[in-house]
Amino acid sequence: MEFTRRDLFKKSAAITIGAAVSHWPPAAGDPLPSWNDGPAKTAILNFVQATTDRTNPKFVPEPERIATFDQDGTLWVEHPIYAQVVYCFSRVPAVVKARPELADVEPYKTVLSGRDEAIGKLSTPDLYKILAATLSGMSVEQFESNVKNWLANARDSRWKKRYTELIYQPMIEVLTYMRSSGYKTYIVTGGGQDFVRVYSEETYGIPPEQVVGTASGTTFGYDKDGQPFLTKDPKLLLNDDKAGKPEGIHLMIGRRPYAAFGNSIGDQQMLEYTKAGDGERLAMLVIHDDADREYAYGPAQGLPDTKVGTFTQALYDQAKSKGWTIASVKNDWKRVVS
Amino acid sequence: MEFTRRDLFKKSAAITIGAAVSHWPPAAGDPLPSWNDGPAKTAILNFVQATTDRTNPKFVPEPERIATFDQDGTLWVEHPIYAQVVYCFSRVPAVVKARPELADVEPYKTVLSGRDEAIGKLSTPDLYKILAATLSGMSVEQFESNVKNWLANARDSRWKKRYTELIYQPMIEVLTYMRSSGYKTYIVTGGGQDFVRVYSEETYGIPPEQVVGTASGTTFGYDKDGQPFLTKDPKLLLNDDKAGKPEGIHLMIGRRPYAAFGNSIGDQQMLEYTKAGDGERLAMLVIHDDADREYAYGPAQGLPDTKVGTFTQALYDQAKSKGWTIASVKNDWKRVVS
Repeated sequence: MEFTRRDLFKKSAAITIGAAVSHWPPAAGDPLPSWNDGPAKTAILNFVQATTDRTNPKFVPEPERIATFDQDGTLWVEHPIYAQVVYCFSRVPAVVKARPELADVEPYKTVLSGRDEAIGKLSTPDLYKILAATLSGMSVEQFESNVKNWLANARDSRWKKRYTELIYQPMIEVLTYMRSSGYKTYIVTGGGQDFVRVYSEETYGIPPEQVVGTASGTTFGYDKDGQPFLTKDPKLLLNDDKAGKPEGIHLMIGRRPYAAFGNSIGDQQMLEYTKAGDGERLAMLVIHDDADREYAYGPAQGLPDTKVGTFTQALYDQAKSKGWTIASVKNDWKRVVS
Repeated sequence: MEFTRRDLFKKSAAITIGAAVSHWPPAAGDPLPSWNDGPAKTAILNFVQATTDRTNPKFVPEPERIATFDQDGTLWVEHPIYAQVVYCFSRVPAVVKARPELADVEPYKTVLSGRDEAIGKLSTPDLYKILAATLSGMSVEQFESNVKNWLANARDSRWKKRYTELIYQPMIEVLTYMRSSGYKTYIVTGGGQDFVRVYSEETYGIPPEQVVGTASGTTFGYDKDGQPFLTKDPKLLLNDDKAGKPEGIHLMIGRRPYAAFGNSIGDQQMLEYTKAGDGERLAMLVIHDDADREYAYGPAQGLPDTKVGTFTQALYDQAKSKGWTIASVKNDWKRVVS
């Protein structure tokens, strides 16, 4: 976790953000070279082949081919803490600089202390206070610039890589394969819609308009020269988690997905909603069970629930009984973090 | 205005909705054959040519080519009453059948009376009551089915055509031309997002996920068989009118448009926001000044403001002074309603 104030407006930083989409093209012949042969890989291949073959009764016309992907824990690493939360902590000094009276007020005081143990114990309401304070009050362009600069400079604590490099190569291959098969790929994340949109195109090949996330409103206004601009405000419009995911999909896309990918209880309703549609549907649950190459978390691994990416035995049982596809990081993925 | 209760679940009706997108392809060589030569046509052609030519300093990379179109009064006829309001009135008998206690309660009583003069005098709050009652409480699939059936059967009072046939051929050509030039076309309407999504693809070639409109929430739940479904609820999430249009564009698209088309004070902020972007931007205001072929309304035509499509002298003056392109129905369009 880093709290150093940086040169947040260094324009050139933006272009250094990873080019993950292009540097691992799938090998010819096998669109999923980072997947081990097994039921998960077979399920993806069979689903795409069936739904794109005009002679197959499971054929889906191209405009209806929508696939939705959770981000944290499904497309990139979510442990030990969501990247966006690290970003928000990193912005606290700037918030306090603009409003010095907050320096001695909780939860800002604890974040400024830099004491990881105390920060780890912040309550959820305190965390929301920090999110609201650091994700609102600026123009949408200023926010984008702040995030780009942070992404270019921040490194995770374990791999010492940029967060946009901590993406799962097997899932990048699924995104690329589905797009090349006429699927429109969407991120549907509990994370901030504006945050993820900053890097989604360069990192995943997913344009901002195909990112659905937790979203607050903006307020239209004019600057002193009469130029219109949008200010990010703290009012929550869409809590894109759990039941909010299918609700967000309806709001932002307006079609039920044919395929959905998730890894936690936050994705349960999206997977249920997807699987309940007519015809062939794919619902995939990624299981994090590889402590050596990444992390193992959730009761299926004999570990207690954690604050992020909550995975329960009930979700695992539901996946088994409802015919969802289970992808084990340990058994199904040849590579994990690129 | 029609209040007859119809067979709302007649499946075959859906396929009879107009195929307007395909039956007037632009002639080879001129992408805008229904436009008279003049400054408006020239402005569109010059804008598209400049922004799609790699050697031009005004070039815009394809992923950033976003064009937004108001619907009522910009893509289809809005006078004498918004089609969606006619739809909502037509649903009042079904609402009252399900809740008989409303039959003697205003504003339902007035709508049920069928007296056009009294209905025309309903206050805005009363109108909102009717919209909320007729646009919520059902599953999203039921709503889609209701709208499809209504569209297949309803006819406007002047031309005796389906509402989806009352589209402006010159604007259909603009949509087609911009898409063939790599622009992603969006509807950004004050009308209901779910309503417009039902017919946007067949009518305009715009898929549901590219319709931004006034949107209420949905609530995720399970039916008696445990199947998940979404119910439309009355809580407003986005009032996609005036300042709500750029706010809605940010929420749903996340990029500032390069071109925007509107016709009323509801579009002012969208046009301002578009035009304020860097580089070349096109902001077009359609002026309804042709009472013979369509309608003439607003102070520029010496007519009082009306309840729909409000157009003011101030908006006209702003368009002139800010370099927006003005398209006169009378002078710029060879055809009006297809």
